[in-house]
Amino acid sequence: MILHLKTNTPKNILKDYCTKTNAFINKKDSFIQIVNSSSYKVANDELNPFVIKTFVFDSDIQLASLKYSAHKQINIDQLTIGRNSSQFPIIMGPCSVETETQLKEVANFLIHNKLHCIRAGAYKPRTSPYSFQGLETKGLELLKSTAKTNNLITFSEAKDASQIKELIDSVDVVQVGTKAMYDQGILKALGKSDCTVLLKRGFGSTIQEFVQAAEFILCEGNENVILCERGIRTFENKTRFTLDLCGVAWLKHNTNLPIIIDPSHALGSSYGIADLSKAAIAMGVDGLLIETHPNPKQAQSDAEQQLNFDQAKELLEQVQPYLKIQKRILY
Amino acid sequence: MILHLKTNTPKNILKDYCTKTNAFINKKDSFIQIVNSSSYKVANDELNPFVIKTFVFDSDIQLASLKYSAHKQINIDQLTIGRNSSQFPIIMGPCSVETETQLKEVANFLIHNKLHCIRAGAYKPRTSPYSFQGLETKGLELLKSTAKTNNLITFSEAKDASQIKELIDSVDVVQVGTKAMYDQGILKALGKSDCTVLLKRGFGSTIQEFVQAAEFILCEGNENVILCERGIRTFENKTRFTLDLCGVAWLKHNTNLPIIIDPSHALGSSYGIADLSKAAIAMGVDGLLIETHPNPKQAQSDAEQQLNFDQAKELLEQVQPYLKIQKRILY
Amino acid sequence: MILHLKTNTPKNILKDYCTKTNAFINKKDSFIQIVNSSSYKVANDELNPFVIKTFVFDSDIQLASLKYSAHKQINIDQLTIGRNSSQFPIIMGPCSVETETQLKEVANFLIHNKLHCIRAGAYKPRTSPYSFQGLETKGLELLKSTAKTNNLITFSEAKDASQIKELIDSVDVVQVGTKAMYDQGILKALGKSDCTVLLKRGFGSTIQEFVQAAEFILCEGNENVILCERGIRTFENKTRFTLDLCGVAWLKHNTNLPIIIDPSHALGSSYGIADLSKAAIAMGVDGLLIETHPNPKQAQSDAEQQLNFDQAKELLEQVQPYLKIQKRILY
Amino acid sequence: MILHLKTNTPKNILKDYCTKTNAFINKKDSFIQIVNSSSYKVANDELNPFVIKTFVFDSDIQLASLKYSAHKQINIDQLTIGRNSSQFPIIMGPCSVETETQLKEVANFLIHNKLHCIRAGAYKPRTSPYSFQGLETKGLELLKSTAKTNNLITFSEAKDASQIKELIDSVDVVQVGTKAMYDQGILKALGKSDCTVLLKRGFGSTIQEFVQAAEFILCEGNENVILCERGIRTFENKTRFTLDLCGVAWLKHNTNLPIIIDPSHALGSSYGIADLSKAAIAMGVDGLLIETHPNPKQAQSDAEQQLNFDQAKELLEQVQPYLKIQKRILY
Repeated sequence: MILHLKTNTPKNILKDYCTKTNAFINKKDSFIQIVNSSSYKVANDELNPFVIKTFVFDSDIQLASLKYSAHKQINIDQLTIGRNSSQFPIIMGPCSVETETQLKEVANFLIHNKLHCIRAGAYKPRTSPYSFQGLETKGLELLKSTAKTNNLITFSEAKDASQIKELIDSVDVVQVGTKAMYDQGILKALGKSDCTVLLKRGFGSTIQEFVQAAEFILCEGNENVILCERGIRTFENKTRFTLDLCGVAWLKHNTNLPIIIDPSHALGSSYGIADLSKAAIAMGVDGLLIETHPNPKQAQSDAEQQLNFDQAKELLEQVQPYLKIQKRILY
Repeated sequence: MILHLKTNTPKNILKDYCTKTNAFINKKDSFIQIVNSSSYKVANDELNPFVIKTFVFDSDIQLASLKYSAHKQINIDQLTIGRNSSQFPIIMGPCSVETETQLKEVANFLIHNKLHCIRAGAYKPRTSPYSFQGLETKGLELLKSTAKTNNLITFSEAKDASQIKELIDSVDVVQVGTKAMYDQGILKALGKSDCTVLLKRGFGSTIQEFVQAAEFILCEGNENVILCERGIRTFENKTRFTLDLCGVAWLKHNTNLPIIIDPSHALGSSYGIADLSKAAIAMGVDGLLIETHPNPKQAQSDAEQQLNFDQAKELLEQVQPYLKIQKRILY
Repeated sequence: MILHLKTNTPKNILKDYCTKTNAFINKKDSFIQIVNSSSYKVANDELNPFVIKTFVFDSDIQLASLKYSAHKQINIDQLTIGRNSSQFPIIMGPCSVETETQLKEVANFLIHNKLHCIRAGAYKPRTSPYSFQGLETKGLELLKSTAKTNNLITFSEAKDASQIKELIDSVDVVQVGTKAMYDQGILKALGKSDCTVLLKRGFGSTIQEFVQAAEFILCEGNENVILCERGIRTFENKTRFTLDLCGVAWLKHNTNLPIIIDPSHALGSSYGIADLSKAAIAMGVDGLLIETHPNPKQAQSDAEQQLNFDQAKELLEQVQPYLKIQKRILY
Repeated sequence: MILHLKTNTPKNILKDYCTKTNAFINKKDSFIQIVNSSSYKVANDELNPFVIKTFVFDSDIQLASLKYSAHKQINIDQLTIGRNSSQFPIIMGPCSVETETQLKEVANFLIHNKLHCIRAGAYKPRTSPYSFQGLETKGLELLKSTAKTNNLITFSEAKDASQIKELIDSVDVVQVGTKAMYDQGILKALGKSDCTVLLKRGFGSTIQEFVQAAEFILCEGNENVILCERGIRTFENKTRFTLDLCGVAWLKHNTNLPIIIDPSHALGSSYGIADLSKAAIAMGVDGLLIETHPNPKQAQSDAEQQLNFDQAKELLEQVQPYLKIQKRILY
C-alpha cells in the first residue's frame, strides 16, 4: 500500500505505524509518502486523519506501477529518458574496458555518429575465475577520463556490493547486471544515492521479481530507475538467451519506468542485432544498449556479439526511419 | 547431403544408393535431387559420374537452408509470400469457427480493410476433453462457403493425422498447430500433397527441431512451407508464452523459408498485440497471424487474446508506416 | 464435474443434459457416470432427482483425481500394476526393434533375470526425416513373435494417429510417446479401446496438461492408464532432459493413476540410470522403463543412453534392497 | 590447467608465469599448485623444468573435477561430510530466525532426534522489499547462543557481500544462497577464509556455472566447499521449482565435492519432502537440508514448505532404512 500523508502528520504516529508495518518513508514536496506490503489495504485509526490518498495493489509492484504514477522521465545531463521524451539514447561501447586506445576509438566513433552515451565494464562478473575479470579501478579511471574529454555520459556495471560505492562515485549511470539483480547490498546502496540506475533483468528472473528489484531502489527514495530487458534463459540453444518482448509488452502496459533493450546479450551474435534493435524501437521502448568494439575478434570478453564500427554505423542508419515514426531523435 | 544428379542417372544406380542411404528422391526440371542424412559428405563411386553438384551440411537442416537455396516465394492464389514479395499478409479471424454469422462478420471486416486471408479453427486441439472441441466438418464447410462468397484465402488447423486429408481438401493453407509439430502422420501427408503449409513451432521445440519438422515436408517434394513462430514455453508466467524473436533472427539468417509471426498466442492477451506486430514487421518477417473475433468476450476459446474489430482496425492503421519502410503492401 | 446417476435415469433427460454440457457418459455396474467441465458445480433440475453423488473439482483433472477415487490397479496378464501392488515391473528393451537376433538376446536377458516386460519401438518419432525411422509393421511382427515365444508383455509406441489401430491390435501396452502426448487421434482411439496405455509426459508439457491428456482416455471409458514421467526440457544442457521428481511428488499426492519413471530418456546417458532408478523406487513409484540393448554402441537410435546387459544386470541387483523396503517384487 | 610444481620453483619464474596467465597459486605440503584457464594445455619453457604433474581439462571445471582428485571429505567439528563418510547430516531448522523461543524449540527437537546441525536465516534475500527481511545481526546472535548451549553446528546464509565477514565470524557453515551464487564479493571472501561453505545452485544457473562458482572459492585456497542442489526454475508451476536429480547424477559422476539436497525449496510444499528426501538418499548424496519450524503456519517466510515437528520426526523415521542401505548414520 502507498499512502500520501499530510506534511503535518505527527512524527510519533508516523514512526509507530512505519515500525509496526515495516514501511518506508519518503518526504515529497507536498506530502509524505509511505510504502509497505501490498497485503495492507487501509491505514489504521491513528494515521487515518492524516491520509490524503491511499493506493492499494494486488502485488508488491507498487511505486513502479502505472496505477500509481504516469510514465516517468529521468534526466541525465542533457539527456531526458522516458516514454514521452523526444530523445532516444543508443548506448554503445565495448563489453570491457581494455586499453586507453580502445576507449578513445570508441569515443571517436560515438562523437562522429552524434551519440552521447558510452558503456564499458570495469568489473566483469564472469562465470569462471580463470577468465579476464576486468581492469577494475584502473578501468573506471580510463572510462571517466575518456568520457570527460569527449563529454560523454558513462554507463558501467557493479559486480557486487563491495564496489558499489566506487561505481556510484565514478559513473553517471550504474548498471546492475543480470547476475546481480537480486543483490540487496547493491540495490539498497543505490536506493540511498541519487544515482541513475540501469537495472538489468536477471536471466532467470520473472517480470514480477524484476520490478520488485526496482522497488528495492524506489522505496529508499531514489526514483531514477531504468529497466533493461536483456534476454532470459530458456531451452533454446541456438541463441545465447531469449529476448522477452512479451515481457516488455507487459512492462509497458503496467509500469511507469523507462525501458531499455539490450539485444547484444540476448542474441549473443552480431548478425541479428540490427533486426532486434528495429523491433525494440517499433515496440516503443526508450533506448538501446549495444556492445560495440573497435575489433571484436580480439575482445577479451563477449567477442561473438560485439559489433564492429561498420556494423554499428549500419545499424544507426537502419534504425533512423523507425525512430522517425516514433518521433524520437538519436542521442 | 543434397545431391543434384543428371537426369540420365541410371535408375538402378539411383535406387540402390537411395535404399542404402535412406535418401529421398525428387525430380526437378533439369536435375534429380536426392537428400539423405547430413552425416554423408560424398556420393559413392557408382553415383559419382552423375553428380552435378554436392551440398554438405553440419546438421539435418538441409533443404530449408540458405546455404542450399535463396529465399523462397510461395504463391497462393493472388498472394505471393516470402522475403522479396511486396505483399504482406495479415491473416485474421477467430480462434474457432462458431457460427455462420460470426464468420460473415469477420469476412466483412476483412474485406472492408482490404485483407484477403481468413483464419479459423474447425478442429481444436484443446488440452482438456471437457472444453469446446470445435465444429469439425461442419466448421470447415462454414469456412469454405464464407471464403468462397468473399474470395478469401483460408487457413485452418489439422489436429492430428486422422483429419489431415479432409483439411488438405478443404482449405488453401493447412496449419500444423504447435501441439502437432512433431506429428509425422500430418507432416508426411502434407509432404506428399502440394498444399501450402503453415508450420507452427512447437512451444517446447528447439529451432533445430522446428526446421527439421519442415524438412519432413520438403523432403517429400512439397516446397510450399511457411514457418510460424508463436511463442515458446518458459518460466515467465505473466504472459502465456514467450515470443522468440532471437530465434526468428536465427531463422532469417539461416533458412530460406518465409516466416510468419503469431503474436496472439505468444502474449495471450489483447493489450500488446499491436506492439508485437510492429516489432515483427520491423524485423522483416513475411506476414502476421492474428486472432480477431466480433465479440471476444463470448468466444468459445482464447477469449483473452482475440482482438475485437476496433482493436484490429487500430492495429492495421498502426502498422502501416512500418510496412511502408519495408516496402510492403498489406494483403 | 462428475455425477453418479441412478441406472434408471430416463434416456432423454440424460441425453439432453449431456448434449447441452458436452458430457461423456460411461455405464458402470451400479450407476451411470457422467463427466463434463469442472466449471459445472451442480446438475440441473431435470437431472437432480437421479443424482446419487456429485464430485466437483477446481480444474479438469477429475477422473484421474485422488479426490474422485483411491489409487487404481491395472492388470496386464499376470502383472498387477499400481500403488498397492506387490509387483514392480522394470520394463526393459531396446529403443528400436532392429533385428530378430537383437530381440532374442533381449528376451533371453529378461527371462534369465526374471523380468516379464519388453519394450521396443517399431515406429520411431525421430526429429529428423533423414534418421532411421524404425522397422514399422515388420518391427511389430518381430516384437510380437519374440514376446509370444518367451511369454513376455509387450510395450511399444504409437507415432501418430495413422498407426494407432495397428498398435492396439499388436501389443499389450501402447505407449503414447512424449511428442504425441497431445495427439487426440491417438488418445481418443485408445479411450475407445480397452488397451492398457502408458502415457508419457510431453517434455514441454505441464503436469496439468499431462493429466488432462489422461482424462482424454479416461472419459471415453478406458480406465487402464499409466502415467510416465520421462524428463522435461529446461535450460540445463549437460543432461538430455530434467527428470521432474517434484512433479512426481505432486502426481502421487493428487492423482489415482499408477506412475512409472523412464530415467533413460531423462538423463540421456547410461552412467546415472541406476542412481535415478533407486531414487524413483525410494519415492514410491510403480515401475521403471529402461532402455537396454545387446550392443548400445551399434544401436540405430539413442546409443548414448541404452544400458548393455552388464549394466542392466548391475542395476537390477542394486535396486533390490530398495524394492525390499517398499515390499515390492521385481516383475 | 592445473600444474603441480616443485617447492623449489624460483619465485620470479612462478610469479612471471602466474601474472602472464592470470593463474592462482596455492602452496600445498609437497608441491605448489597453480591453476589458470582450461585453454592452457602446457606450461612454458621457463616453468617446465619444475613441473611435477600437469592436469588439462575441457572446461573451467578443474579443481572440483573428479579427474583432478578423488571425492573430498570436509570436517566440521565432529562431523565428516563426503562420499565416503559414514555420517549423514540432516540439517534442519526454520527458514528465518524469529524469536529465541522458536530457536530453543528447534534445538530441543534436534537434540531429541540426535541431530547436530541447525539452519536458520538471519539475513533473508527476499524478492520484495516489503516482506520480512530477517533479524540480521540480532538473528545471528540468537542462533549462535542457541547453538552454543546445545552444542550444534550452525548454518546460515549470506545475502550479499556487505555481511559476508559477519557471517564468516558468526557461523560454522556459511550458506551462499541461490540468488547469491554469482556474487563474487561473497565467493572471494569465502575463498580467502577457511570457513566451510554450502554453495547453493542458482535456480537459473547451469551445472557448469554452478561448479564454476565453486571454483571461485577453491582457487583462492579454501577447499571446504559443499554443493547444494535446491531446484531450478522451469515452466512447471504446480511446484515451486524443479529438483534436478539428473544434474545431481552428473555432479556425482564428474566432481569431487560433497553434495547436499534441499528438497524444501525445490518443492515449496510440505507434502512430498519425505519422498524427495528418500530419493536423494537412494541416489547417494551426502546430506539433506530441510526447513522445519515449530509452527509453520505462523512462519514469517516460506510458511508452505516448512515441516512441523511431527512431520519432521516422521521423515527422520522414514529415511532410516534407506540410510542403512547406504551404510550411513544420521548426524
